[in-house]
Amino acid sequence: MSGGVDSTTTLAIAKHQQFTIYAVSFHYGQRHHIELDAAKRIATHFSVKKHLIIDIDLAAIGGSALTSNLEIPKYRDIENIPGEIPLTYVPGRNIIFLSLALAWAEVLGAFDIFIGANAIDFSGYPDCRAEFLAAFETMANLGTKTGVEGKKIKIHAPLLMLTKAQIIQKGIALGVDYSMTLSCYDPTEQGKACGKCDSCLLRKKGFREAGTIDPTVYLD
Amino acid sequence: MSGGVDSTTTLAIAKHQQFTIYAVSFHYGQRHHIELDAAKRIATHFSVKKHLIIDIDLAAIGGSALTSNLEIPKYRDIENIPGEIPLTYVPGRNIIFLSLALAWAEVLGAFDIFIGANAIDFSGYPDCRAEFLAAFETMANLGTKTGVEGKKIKIHAPLLMLTKAQIIQKGIALGVDYSMTLSCYDPTEQGKACGKCDSCLLRKKGFREAGTIDPTVYLD
Repeated sequence: MSGGVDSTTTLAIAKHQQFTIYAVSFHYGQRHHIELDAAKRIATHFSVKKHLIIDIDLAAIGGSALTSNLEIPKYRDIENIPGEIPLTYVPGRNIIFLSLALAWAEVLGAFDIFIGANAIDFSGYPDCRAEFLAAFETMANLGTKTGVEGKKIKIHAPLLMLTKAQIIQKGIALGVDYSMTLSCYDPTEQGKACGKCDSCLLRKKGFREAGTIDPTVYLD
Repeated sequence: MSGGVDSTTTLAIAKHQQFTIYAVSFHYGQRHHIELDAAKRIATHFSVKKHLIIDIDLAAIGGSALTSNLEIPKYRDIENIPGEIPLTYVPGRNIIFLSLALAWAEVLGAFDIFIGANAIDFSGYPDCRAEFLAAFETMANLGTKTGVEGKKIKIHAPLLMLTKAQIIQKGIALGVDYSMTLSCYDPTEQGKACGKCDSCLLRKKGFREAGTIDPTVYLD
């Protein structure tokens, strides 16, 4: 749970489906660690059973603008974002996060792992695609005690084929207060969003298309 | 690279196959962090290009005698080890470690990941089996930029179907000095091995069957 639109909506969906929620966030060397404050607020708001924040030093691996001192790319508007995989891609991020969630699920005796991955209004990250998630699920069932004992681990990605606007509409229908969420890759210390990174631009477009006001305070 | 027999032998094999070596170890909340000293010695000895030690707090997840204050099980001899998956199983460990190795490989532009997994003289961990490793490789090629760009990531497990004795014989043929390695799950602060945990017992059996003297100093 990053504290953004997608993970918060996913949490609301899982809760609506009557799952008992154990939420996991990662302190992974991201520059925007302020997002963890949003994640904590959201976890409290949704009364999750437990919110685990796992420390993992992805900055040691590097390779991403999110975990290094590379500049976060900014764009005039969403049409200016180039088609290739952007600098904000963190190599293996969802693979690592899902692996840790899987390990915790195994300890908890849980079989259902929810992730807010989205393959429509997304930044082109390979680890957000359906074929990746299906392969991860197969691997998870072969590499864990849970799977080997014949119980089926399932990776749920309820947002996978929704547009950002549809995600926001779904969340609003479930009563999500998006003023709790933070999407920006490069927020100020006070939690103001830059308004120009790919994540801000995708968020703005989503709210615009959903016909709803974005409660985010943008610098720009 | 844990600093034990298997990862050290795997390193020697990869080196013998002319690969440039980037070694990764994990400081994951294990009680036997003294193994990282062995890993560092071995990395230096083999002149690896870089040795990365990644911090990851698996103790927060719990569920294993290796990362909690559960007692490490001790046995009179190897025949007394029960058939089930033991308490030293760390849920998802190889999945997490391979995911992090994969992320680093992606940053380095490397395609070959070596792991000392073994499915013969092993403790029955599900994440050491051939079918798991094959599924991980498939997932890795679908979930990374490298894979999506059409380059093939390969998981190498050259020890997978060898007995511990065969592993040791192979290492000796390649000039490995096993006095550098540490296998024990519960060593003393001075690096003495307990001689009674599943890892010690597997090691002793391996050296006995290889017809070679085990250089380990055992408490017992």
